[in-house]
Amino acid sequence: MIDTPNLVDQYCHGVLRTELGLGTFEARLGAHLGGSAALPAAGTTFFDTQTGFAVRRWCPPLLGLEPHCPPARYLARRRELGAAEAGRRLLRASGISTYLVDTGIPGDLTGPAELGAAGAAEAHEIVRLERLAEQVADTSGTVEAFLANLAEAVHGAAADAVALASAAGARQGLASAPEPPGPGEVRGAAGRWLAARPVGGRLTDPVLLRHLLWIAVTAGRPLQLHTGDRDPAALAGFAAATAGLGADLVLLHAYPHHRAAAHLTGLHPHVYADLGPALAHTGARAAAVLAEVLERAPFGKLLFSSGARGLPELHVVAASAFRSALTRVLGEWVMDGAWSRTDAQRVAGMIAAENARRVYRLTGSR
Amino acid sequence: MIDTPNLVDQYCHGVLRTELGLGTFEARLGAHLGGSAALPAAGTTFFDTQTGFAVRRWCPPLLGLEPHCPPARYLARRRELGAAEAGRRLLRASGISTYLVDTGIPGDLTGPAELGAAGAAEAHEIVRLERLAEQVADTSGTVEAFLANLAEAVHGAAADAVALASAAGARQGLASAPEPPGPGEVRGAAGRWLAARPVGGRLTDPVLLRHLLWIAVTAGRPLQLHTGDRDPAALAGFAAATAGLGADLVLLHAYPHHRAAAHLTGLHPHVYADLGPALAHTGARAAAVLAEVLERAPFGKLLFSSGARGLPELHVVAASAFRSALTRVLGEWVMDGAWSRTDAQRVAGMIAAENARRVYRLTGSR
Amino acid sequence: MIDTPNLVDQYCHGVLRTELGLGTFEARLGAHLGGSAALPAAGTTFFDTQTGFAVRRWCPPLLGLEPHCPPARYLARRRELGAAEAGRRLLRASGISTYLVDTGIPGDLTGPAELGAAGAAEAHEIVRLERLAEQVADTSGTVEAFLANLAEAVHGAAADAVALASAAGARQGLASAPEPPGPGEVRGAAGRWLAARPVGGRLTDPVLLRHLLWIAVTAGRPLQLHTGDRDPAALAGFAAATAGLGADLVLLHAYPHHRAAAHLTGLHPHVYADLGPALAHTGARAAAVLAEVLERAPFGKLLFSSGARGLPELHVVAASAFRSALTRVLGEWVMDGAWSRTDAQRVAGMIAAENARRVYRLTGSR
Repeated sequence: MIDTPNLVDQYCHGVLRTELGLGTFEARLGAHLGGSAALPAAGTTFFDTQTGFAVRRWCPPLLGLEPHCPPARYLARRRELGAAEAGRRLLRASGISTYLVDTGIPGDLTGPAELGAAGAAEAHEIVRLERLAEQVADTSGTVEAFLANLAEAVHGAAADAVALASAAGARQGLASAPEPPGPGEVRGAAGRWLAARPVGGRLTDPVLLRHLLWIAVTAGRPLQLHTGDRDPAALAGFAAATAGLGADLVLLHAYPHHRAAAHLTGLHPHVYADLGPALAHTGARAAAVLAEVLERAPFGKLLFSSGARGLPELHVVAASAFRSALTRVLGEWVMDGAWSRTDAQRVAGMIAAENARRVYRLTGSR
Repeated sequence: MIDTPNLVDQYCHGVLRTELGLGTFEARLGAHLGGSAALPAAGTTFFDTQTGFAVRRWCPPLLGLEPHCPPARYLARRRELGAAEAGRRLLRASGISTYLVDTGIPGDLTGPAELGAAGAAEAHEIVRLERLAEQVADTSGTVEAFLANLAEAVHGAAADAVALASAAGARQGLASAPEPPGPGEVRGAAGRWLAARPVGGRLTDPVLLRHLLWIAVTAGRPLQLHTGDRDPAALAGFAAATAGLGADLVLLHAYPHHRAAAHLTGLHPHVYADLGPALAHTGARAAAVLAEVLERAPFGKLLFSSGARGLPELHVVAASAFRSALTRVLGEWVMDGAWSRTDAQRVAGMIAAENARRVYRLTGSR
Repeated sequence: MIDTPNLVDQYCHGVLRTELGLGTFEARLGAHLGGSAALPAAGTTFFDTQTGFAVRRWCPPLLGLEPHCPPARYLARRRELGAAEAGRRLLRASGISTYLVDTGIPGDLTGPAELGAAGAAEAHEIVRLERLAEQVADTSGTVEAFLANLAEAVHGAAADAVALASAAGARQGLASAPEPPGPGEVRGAAGRWLAARPVGGRLTDPVLLRHLLWIAVTAGRPLQLHTGDRDPAALAGFAAATAGLGADLVLLHAYPHHRAAAHLTGLHPHVYADLGPALAHTGARAAAVLAEVLERAPFGKLLFSSGARGLPELHVVAASAFRSALTRVLGEWVMDGAWSRTDAQRVAGMIAAENARRVYRLTGSR
């Protein structure tokens, strides 16, 4: 009923190039749930989750199998085709025509160009701020050089990347205060961090993270913030402080606080929210979660994404769950007379792709 | 199936008397979302929200147009009729027979008598505590006079008003502690505030706000508290501290924490919750939100309200969404055998009007 | 469609042995809502709640009456049969074949053996940690004796009990820090508490509560934690700190934060969540709440419970609401093609009984 156009996946990662066994595939599903544990509890399996069931619903038919076939059978077929061919078939069937790819996480994942080629889609890079800062720290000899190089690196990245992203920043950097830290505070924090840091050490200092977010705000690109299953109300101060500075804020992955994130997008012109992963994780419940997000957010403020990482199955599941949910939810509202069909079709197009094209200034042919 | 009687709107404001263009009408929709911004994000419009779609669903037919007609057409028809006549038609079709009107917000809005006359309904005044305190400050020469006049003014207002309301109080006044501040603390805070205050300056001092709430609790009228999209769990201490003192507390506008607010009403005999605005803001989702509120609240503790401000369309949307949601939710439960039809009809009457009549001791003929 | 097997009620209390009038029965419904008040608000009744309506839906037919008959008629029939016979009929019709019974709350309630006999079911004891510590304090002369006896008592209880439970621990003990308190800190807190404590005084000291939880973690039995309608995110630190120590954590009663609790079970192998009471309290909404819990929790991490206390009607309502909700929710997903029927049946069995049998190592014949 509701036509869902080609999707812009406004936040995802690449896929693994290696063949996967049952255990390694399951570990990837577990990571997708957000857990640090590589193993499920004794007597349980990560296949027994909404994501696991959703993979078994949507993916086997794309590789020529029955829906809901056992995981072992699916993975045998996947190895038979090879990871590359299976990935191509899955990604090309996903309906995603543009990928925005965060390249700043560890692991041997395909980059934007390789992901785009596999999926016969456009692809653009999102630069992860913490990773960028760590790279700058690796090559800067002094505090002064580090701080100067950091600002330059962020602005340089903003020239090429489609967006900047931060994971630790929103979780740890904005806990105490939303304002930019003072120069002395920043210099002190940088000195302590650089002195104590082993090679490759991660950036977790709250003052430096906050400093980094404020550099990013001045770089003129959308800034994507992982809310990390915390109440986005904690970001209200930062949202208020950054109003009118020209950078849009995009809240990522707010479940179970997706209603609060949606609500926040109505309070500030520059605040947006994604909704893909909330749907990708909830499988049979995707329509219900989508409907909640649509309660308070202005429809111009919502952006589809998959949040997928490592498995092309996760791109497929997110896109399939999203389209199926959108059709069901908007279709019901049209049937009830609550929305006109024209409006429903228009809003579907906005959330699926048009809002992202506007926010990220995408000018591709699709 | 479920008969919805004449509604008591237990919390709303008046309507604008002036003619509205597309931009001014849209700004009012944006304010209704809770945002401070007068303008939507570039490339978006506040009409593309559940509230915007709900206005276009329910209101055009009341002015002789098709549902979901374009905003510009609706506003042209509205100007053709004139703001006063359009307001009369809208309010009289809302099904609201009693308005409780908070008169303490800025703007040239109709007062209770004028709103009641336009809507052919009863109307009563709710006094906003912060505004009252600011008026007392404007006319009191000393700290001692201010504090004495304040207590007198609150008790005087309680004699005439149907309820007292506070917005900043619940948000800022109860953040640190729920107990009444000591006399020395109050005198110090009052001295500082009065000394620093420009004419017309707003009351934001947390100690004075808390003092004001505690005066209100002793005034014997229901005290309405804006929870301001915060978790009402923050009010649990105040609820516990005020138990048995004789004043009912009515939690306003708790979305997205409406379940927590509903839950709180079951823990304390004197705590109530409204549900209108949660429904008015969520349009096609009103039935789903209503159903959530009905999970844990005793049915004698819920009160309809519109929370409407400025636009009579918002009174209409709240009432229409509420009645449609109530019929759908309770009707389904009756069909399932979960509730008896008699109970459903009785509970509908309680939430729509009877609970409010009891709590506010309304004795009108309707 | 979905077969729901015999249930394991993984957390409940016993039932009252005395006959109940309308007022005493209603007070028990009010306590079930979580309120401290014995009385409902003037003009309202605790029968006008989802729990009250659910009792009237499910219980009268088990005693030979029409569903939804008036409370007074139901209670007359109950007294006619006598509390013991009514209890037997209700419990035996509940479908619960194993009760895990927290015996550590005040009141003259049946213990596990008596509850099991009435319900023709297995029954096992859950030991409440705070109560155990208070009993140890009653009989220990010195701080040193108290601390030694406490550790011994917890480990002794763990040998016989099926689980350990804590109510105040999760609410007050983990507010400041998740780590075990140091020996000096514990000794100081114990000294102060024992010195100030009247006979029978309750344990509320946060340091001792935290100490108690950490003893429990080393006792090798599942530790049940009342989240007390707080956001389980507050338990995230304790969950992280106890990972890999061998004791499972079971989060009890997280509504309205049941989604956050479910989410947490996916992050840590040793964290589980119950869902009975969330369903028992929400009556006609049980299916909707169950569906939310099923969004993010691995299906091997969810456990049915009733949380019932005092009234066998509450065991019945929880079990009936759970089975009806499970059938509806999973049945719809099968109809939609989102889940296979085989998977749905398997997951139903896991949540209803098998997960609990595995976690609590139950080896009964049922």
